Amino acid sequence: MTQVRLDISMSLDGFVAGPDPTLEEPLGVAGERLHEWIFGLKSFRENHGMTGGETNRDDEIVAETVAATGAVVMGRKMFSGGTGPWEDDLRADGWWGDEPPFGGPVFVLTHHARERKAMKGGTDFHFVTDGIESALEQARAAAGEKDVLIAGGGEAAQQYLRAGLLDVVQVHVAPLFLGSGVRLFDGIPLDAVTLETERVVASPKVTHLRFRVIH
Amino acid sequence: MTQVRLDISMSLDGFVAGPDPTLEEPLGVAGERLHEWIFGLKSFRENHGMTGGETNRDDEIVAETVAATGAVVMGRKMFSGGTGPWEDDLRADGWWGDEPPFGGPVFVLTHHARERKAMKGGTDFHFVTDGIESALEQARAAAGEKDVLIAGGGEAAQQYLRAGLLDVVQVHVAPLFLGSGVRLFDGIPLDAVTLETERVVASPKVTHLRFRVIH
Repeated sequence: MTQVRLDISMSLDGFVAGPDPTLEEPLGVAGERLHEWIFGLKSFRENHGMTGGETNRDDEIVAETVAATGAVVMGRKMFSGGTGPWEDDLRADGWWGDEPPFGGPVFVLTHHARERKAMKGGTDFHFVTDGIESALEQARAAAGEKDVLIAGGGEAAQQYLRAGLLDVVQVHVAPLFLGSGVRLFDGIPLDAVTLETERVVASPKVTHLRFRVIH
Repeated sequence: MTQVRLDISMSLDGFVAGPDPTLEEPLGVAGERLHEWIFGLKSFRENHGMTGGETNRDDEIVAETVAATGAVVMGRKMFSGGTGPWEDDLRADGWWGDEPPFGGPVFVLTHHARERKAMKGGTDFHFVTDGIESALEQARAAAGEKDVLIAGGGEAAQQYLRAGLLDVVQVHVAPLFLGSGVRLFDGIPLDAVTLETERVVASPKVTHLRFRVIH
């Protein structure tokens, strides 16, 4: 049965992006460091059209997510690289490149209607203007038996979490401090969400915390 | 050789205390839930003059900290129960009870000079008015070969972390959201602190993340 999974990298001080994102540095100042643990992994490289790479426990966890995912949902800022004005979205299309790494349907939460945009490698961007539940419904339909991955950014993650729409929360905690930026768990009210620890895996570069949301 | 260890429980959204602390609820609204993992453990109960309790991996980790600690440093708000006015300190003496669980020297950071106060069970409160370095120096001297434990709260932890005075950071992450309160890692600037993951242990109630600070 389809699970709705949040899967995101976070600093020890709780940020999923640094401050002051630009088209050149879409994850904000030092935000890319959150993802350093993943760049050298075999499954990440394969997904990005490269060969080689490390095979280790981190790699297994990435491979597991890739294999389970049938459709992706992301916020507009993640799509457009975290930049402000809507016009940047169009420029930001270049940010994910001609061949984005998703290899399937991606539903982008936005206030601006746009034509569906199919890319090389199977990534197929759909722009959803009627809210997070609609995006999730469309992603569920597209995912078939597979899972829906909520890929970020912080605001989209919070919206799904607060709405009780997630089944699994996986956070990859990088052992560093960003000091400012976008916090992942901000404004999640007490008792709004109940979690059960499902699995914790640690490596030198990152600790993978996986929780099940108790409905 | 003496290590300076931060050892503190934190919610998944980064809080070490809830909002609105009072003398009745010194950890703020729901703040006590951060510590629920510890109350049933044998080593915690022993330390608080009770018998029985669970022996498991969580218990081993608490016992390890208790055995290693030669002196404790805490912030004034932790001592006085998180309440605001200085006058509360005097009332709050009752909060830790006649026999506080520290069993040794405790150095309280404060702006208000007070007489040393020895309690039943070996806890010996010293009030330090000349800053965090002085408190640490006194704690080191008192600890002998053992370690100095920075016990909290959030502000004291941040001060020691920013000043580069910690050797080990151990955070016990409780899988819950408090939504507001006192954040542990707030305003730690990018690149101010470099951590290396030393050990991660997970149980259903809590995940213990231990980092070494690279000096």
